[in-house]
Amino acid sequence: MDTITLPTAADMHIHLRQGSLMTMVTPAVAEGGVSICYVMPNLQPTISNTEMAVAYKAELEALSPKVTFLMSLYLNPALTPDEIRKAAKAGVRGVKSYPRGVTTNSESGIESYDIYYPVFQAMEEEGMVLNLHGEIPSDPDKNVCVMNAEEKFLSHLKDIHLAFPKLKIILEHATTEAAVKMVKSLGDTVGCTITVHHLQLIVDDWAGKCHNFCKPVAKYPSDRAALRNVIKEGKFFLGTDSAPHPSHRKEGPDSCAGVFTTPLVLPYLATILESFGALDRLRGFACDFGRAFYEVKNEKWVGEVKLVREEWNAPQKYSFGGEGIVGEKGDVVPFMAGKPLGWKIASIN
Amino acid sequence: MDTITLPTAADMHIHLRQGSLMTMVTPAVAEGGVSICYVMPNLQPTISNTEMAVAYKAELEALSPKVTFLMSLYLNPALTPDEIRKAAKAGVRGVKSYPRGVTTNSESGIESYDIYYPVFQAMEEEGMVLNLHGEIPSDPDKNVCVMNAEEKFLSHLKDIHLAFPKLKIILEHATTEAAVKMVKSLGDTVGCTITVHHLQLIVDDWAGKCHNFCKPVAKYPSDRAALRNVIKEGKFFLGTDSAPHPSHRKEGPDSCAGVFTTPLVLPYLATILESFGALDRLRGFACDFGRAFYEVKNEKWVGEVKLVREEWNAPQKYSFGGEGIVGEKGDVVPFMAGKPLGWKIASIN
Repeated sequence: MDTITLPTAADMHIHLRQGSLMTMVTPAVAEGGVSICYVMPNLQPTISNTEMAVAYKAELEALSPKVTFLMSLYLNPALTPDEIRKAAKAGVRGVKSYPRGVTTNSESGIESYDIYYPVFQAMEEEGMVLNLHGEIPSDPDKNVCVMNAEEKFLSHLKDIHLAFPKLKIILEHATTEAAVKMVKSLGDTVGCTITVHHLQLIVDDWAGKCHNFCKPVAKYPSDRAALRNVIKEGKFFLGTDSAPHPSHRKEGPDSCAGVFTTPLVLPYLATILESFGALDRLRGFACDFGRAFYEVKNEKWVGEVKLVREEWNAPQKYSFGGEGIVGEKGDVVPFMAGKPLGWKIASIN
Repeated sequence: MDTITLPTAADMHIHLRQGSLMTMVTPAVAEGGVSICYVMPNLQPTISNTEMAVAYKAELEALSPKVTFLMSLYLNPALTPDEIRKAAKAGVRGVKSYPRGVTTNSESGIESYDIYYPVFQAMEEEGMVLNLHGEIPSDPDKNVCVMNAEEKFLSHLKDIHLAFPKLKIILEHATTEAAVKMVKSLGDTVGCTITVHHLQLIVDDWAGKCHNFCKPVAKYPSDRAALRNVIKEGKFFLGTDSAPHPSHRKEGPDSCAGVFTTPLVLPYLATILESFGALDRLRGFACDFGRAFYEVKNEKWVGEVKLVREEWNAPQKYSFGGEGIVGEKGDVVPFMAGKPLGWKIASIN
């Protein structure tokens, strides 16, 4: 098989940033073969109410008119059930929860879920999705660190699901066998996104390699195997967590967490899935299951992507900013920069 | 207690490098309060015979005449029992084993120990020490990665010890609770070095922080707790594994593994040990236990170090090379660069 034809994909977890970085990244969504994406709200300031979400969506649509942007709010103590109802009416699709201090711009993240139960109640009634960054903060005294922070979070996922069985919940960017098992054990309202890079990386790959460093960190080979095994199941679907950072914020004493995959989502996925004999799962994982979970009905555009088998190397960098563009200027180093890929997008129509 | 007086310390695992980097690092040994050290042979080319070890020692003594340098050979297939006897006569103290490809300049490391049994036999007879880098190479198919590579090595340590019960063996730079338990379970001929930085770091500290990245990587909080608990016992002693790399080889897409602690060994240790209530263990761990294990009899010099309680910040960098010095020029960023230390060396006499 040397060509694959499939609908434009659904990336149900993406960071599109602000300013000059947003200006580069947003048009790259369609380049990667994606026509619908679920947009993270961890900007500065965070997207914390309907008005901000609507304004951000307008910015994104101006940059990439054909793509459907599903918007989210940042879970925070000021969020009320009334605001949830208002957001739902305005088309905001969900609410993202960040544990405090765990990743980029999560300083205002949550510490306990109990106070949010009235909000979750409203979300359940309005059919909104709850997106969980499933890690608890590291705590050496309790032996919590980046390697087990996800596993130790899973009881929260279960508790919220049991309290709100009709609320759609997504465990975002799962990285562990434990997470896969937990999601499988829960009802159909619980889904799970898996990134491109967590299908490829293990802990060794980010040890001393800043461009592979992200949160949650990639873990044991057995965890990667669990993710690879589960992508055929409908509860598990693509959410890239593509998170561009300027290279000077990656290469230095303190590296920002995030892997940039947006411009090459389908070439990466076809290459990686083929490497472990799962190319036949590409369409379900990347195109169908995410749309089904989100019950997507109206999309601005769904194209047809033609992938062809071709050996080429991923670009070393993507530049952003510069002449005529307000804001910072720099480069972003993509996932697998300069490394061989086995598939290329020939056309998107 | 605001002053501590103790003998100059013994660092039983140190990388002193070559060329301009060696020229900077070697005099820094005494600055850190150390007067005897066990020198690693992973140069380019590796120190693989007596002649090379003797020549390297002369270079080091020229740079730091008062310090006693214990020399080692790099375990390799060309090493014969005859060469071991020759090395022992020349004062070479031990042989270091690197698993292939695990750390800096380990491309010629070992894959199986069986072929070395005649060499180990000669070492046992000559009273030489076997230093083990205790990690097996990562192998995703067998679920081996940097997080469990040490634990999975421990059966090799046990096997060699059972085959050569009188051979002194050191498990170098232990990082796990499993390693501590294994060393404790074996006979008195088995010792274990612990670095300064592994008493301080966990996996979170090198996630995205290249200057804390080393091999073996720092692991779970529970592993760090096991190391902290065991430093009072005579089998466990200081081996810093101080491993300087120019900062441009740390800060970039591919970071070299290694943490640089040599110039500040005792200030670091006093600060870190005090943070977990173990300042009373400083002398045993840093000065006495290592000398006892190596049965050190003749030292060129043992000084008296006076540490005083003083808040100051570790330097941001140490420069090497430059005018009149052959070789590369650059900076090395030390451990805890710019961070507060609680103790300072007031004098060494």
